[in-house]
Amino acid sequence: MKNASDTTADAEVTALHRALELSLRGPRHGVNPQVGCVLLSPSGEVLGEGWHRGAGTPHAEVAALASAAEVHGPEAARGATAVVTLEPCDHHGRTGPCSVALIEAGVARVVYGAADPGRASSGGAERMRAAGLEVVAGVEAAAVEEAIRPWLTAVRHHRPFVTVKWASSLDGRAAAADGSSRWITGPEARADVHRRRADADAIVVGIGTVLADDPELTARGENGLLPHQPAPVVLGRRAVPDGARLHAHPLALRRFDGHDLDAVLGALYDDEVRSVFVEGGPTLASAFLAAGLADELVVYLAPTLIGGPFTALGELGVGSMDAQRRLTITGVDRLGDDLRIVARPATTTDTSATAPAATKE
Amino acid sequence: MKNASDTTADAEVTALHRALELSLRGPRHGVNPQVGCVLLSPSGEVLGEGWHRGAGTPHAEVAALASAAEVHGPEAARGATAVVTLEPCDHHGRTGPCSVALIEAGVARVVYGAADPGRASSGGAERMRAAGLEVVAGVEAAAVEEAIRPWLTAVRHHRPFVTVKWASSLDGRAAAADGSSRWITGPEARADVHRRRADADAIVVGIGTVLADDPELTARGENGLLPHQPAPVVLGRRAVPDGARLHAHPLALRRFDGHDLDAVLGALYDDEVRSVFVEGGPTLASAFLAAGLADELVVYLAPTLIGGPFTALGELGVGSMDAQRRLTITGVDRLGDDLRIVARPATTTDTSATAPAATKE
Repeated sequence: MKNASDTTADAEVTALHRALELSLRGPRHGVNPQVGCVLLSPSGEVLGEGWHRGAGTPHAEVAALASAAEVHGPEAARGATAVVTLEPCDHHGRTGPCSVALIEAGVARVVYGAADPGRASSGGAERMRAAGLEVVAGVEAAAVEEAIRPWLTAVRHHRPFVTVKWASSLDGRAAAADGSSRWITGPEARADVHRRRADADAIVVGIGTVLADDPELTARGENGLLPHQPAPVVLGRRAVPDGARLHAHPLALRRFDGHDLDAVLGALYDDEVRSVFVEGGPTLASAFLAAGLADELVVYLAPTLIGGPFTALGELGVGSMDAQRRLTITGVDRLGDDLRIVARPATTTDTSATAPAATKE
Repeated sequence: MKNASDTTADAEVTALHRALELSLRGPRHGVNPQVGCVLLSPSGEVLGEGWHRGAGTPHAEVAALASAAEVHGPEAARGATAVVTLEPCDHHGRTGPCSVALIEAGVARVVYGAADPGRASSGGAERMRAAGLEVVAGVEAAAVEEAIRPWLTAVRHHRPFVTVKWASSLDGRAAAADGSSRWITGPEARADVHRRRADADAIVVGIGTVLADDPELTARGENGLLPHQPAPVVLGRRAVPDGARLHAHPLALRRFDGHDLDAVLGALYDDEVRSVFVEGGPTLASAFLAAGLADELVVYLAPTLIGGPFTALGELGVGSMDAQRRLTITGVDRLGDDLRIVARPATTTDTSATAPAATKE
């Protein structure tokens, strides 16, 4: 037989899964993470729900408090439990700290998944405990950390989360001998690329790709531009031609003359870019991989053979098999005739480093 | 409501599926195809079953007649229906023609899947019709043709069925910069290679691979050599060293100085080789692919990146995207950490060319 405390714990785990589901309604791009919050009465009844809809809008906790107040009146949260995917922030940004909002609303207990690693935003748990709230950390932390891996990785390393994408034939070629490459993959794979571009803050290419392919660097769907666009970023010394199509991009072009990737990523992070989608060419993609700066790989393999000189990746500095760059494959899917393989470096510790066991202090 | 004729047809389709299942108990390698046979009484009762166990042993029809005679006596097949995956042979080889065996046993009706395209062996249907038997061709022909695609392809083209295998990193490399390649794939993928070698009549490599890797060219399992071994075949002018490990192979080495692949395959076919497993190196694999002589590709992709010069395939003569060699992927599986992709040329007509609709003549 379960006791009352077990029942509470079960209700809170269920609420955390619901909060995680809500969090995904928010945008993946942007300076803030996806966060969801569910407010429970002491008996486990759902009083309100909220999620963060992007920078400048209320945080998930504030949205949940508002939703509870609307239905149950201004005192709704008094004595309640707030179940949040991420540690409530303690940060005076464009909105006030969520820690203070929860304290002022009379919340008695806060249960959250992942700790906030942000320099400015962490400390919420500490402030709430000091105010007498019961705070439980690390509930379903692994699932939360996986869901917001890009944002956590960015904040921990003070650089954007880097996705390197390429499309190749089954034998690893990105173009035929004459340089032609349209199209190796089919429409489903290309649509998937555009959706992923729209989830990123910036799209990064080398000047060689701009000169060779004249890309738009936009995220497009069947009806034109998708609602969110990644900022176009071009690396390399050569000039972008005046007539280049990327000049029509709705966001301003960011240019970096050098190829110091750490410096480029640092500058983008300081400019609030939390995720970049690296699309090539092969030299730039290889440079990110060789530098260990790729957090995720999205590879589209087309059912075709091309052979010849134009490999999708170039030199990675792998002298012998000891130095091979092992990956962990996290997804294999058919998209039309093509295969999409999603992988990450096998030794990454980005999201597991700070996952605590559930503790009650 | 079904009439008696529908019921008979249903029983025969069921029997053909059973015959197909039985056929797969026989070996995939060897000069004869996998064939299964089910004998039905006029009321649809199963009288006997048989399958072919390899060259020099009874054909499936003869095995089924023997099994029926053993259980039901020497007159068991009189008036029966023989359901066979492949058109009964009309060939005096190491065993007598199945057409004659079925006629002499008093079988009244023969239902089969695929037509026999063999120069010497076809003609069974004609002989049986001339003897007064009712003969129905093309029942579930597509399934049968797919199951014995290697043998049908070989007999139609008078050359062995060619499987080209390679293992590479996700970026299409077969070795690191120093030439090392052990191991790109894991033990599950390597075991799969050995099982596939054991299904082939011969294993083909270039002399460069012999000199670089000193392979055994055997099919091995956990307990040593597998029961069936592919014959080792080495192409290229340079001499095989006296101390090469392939000299310990249980089957005699076949050498071809030249690289005229049509001539090599023709000679192997004349020597009763119906399937070859081409394992490289990259130059030889590319030559088979460039010549349009690969009937099936088995590609093992390891979750790793290597970069650099050593691609798993070399030059395929693809000047522009118009000339890319499109494939149809027939299987994608995880083997341990690796991916196995099985594909075939997209435009192959090997097994569909002669698939007739079910006809009763």
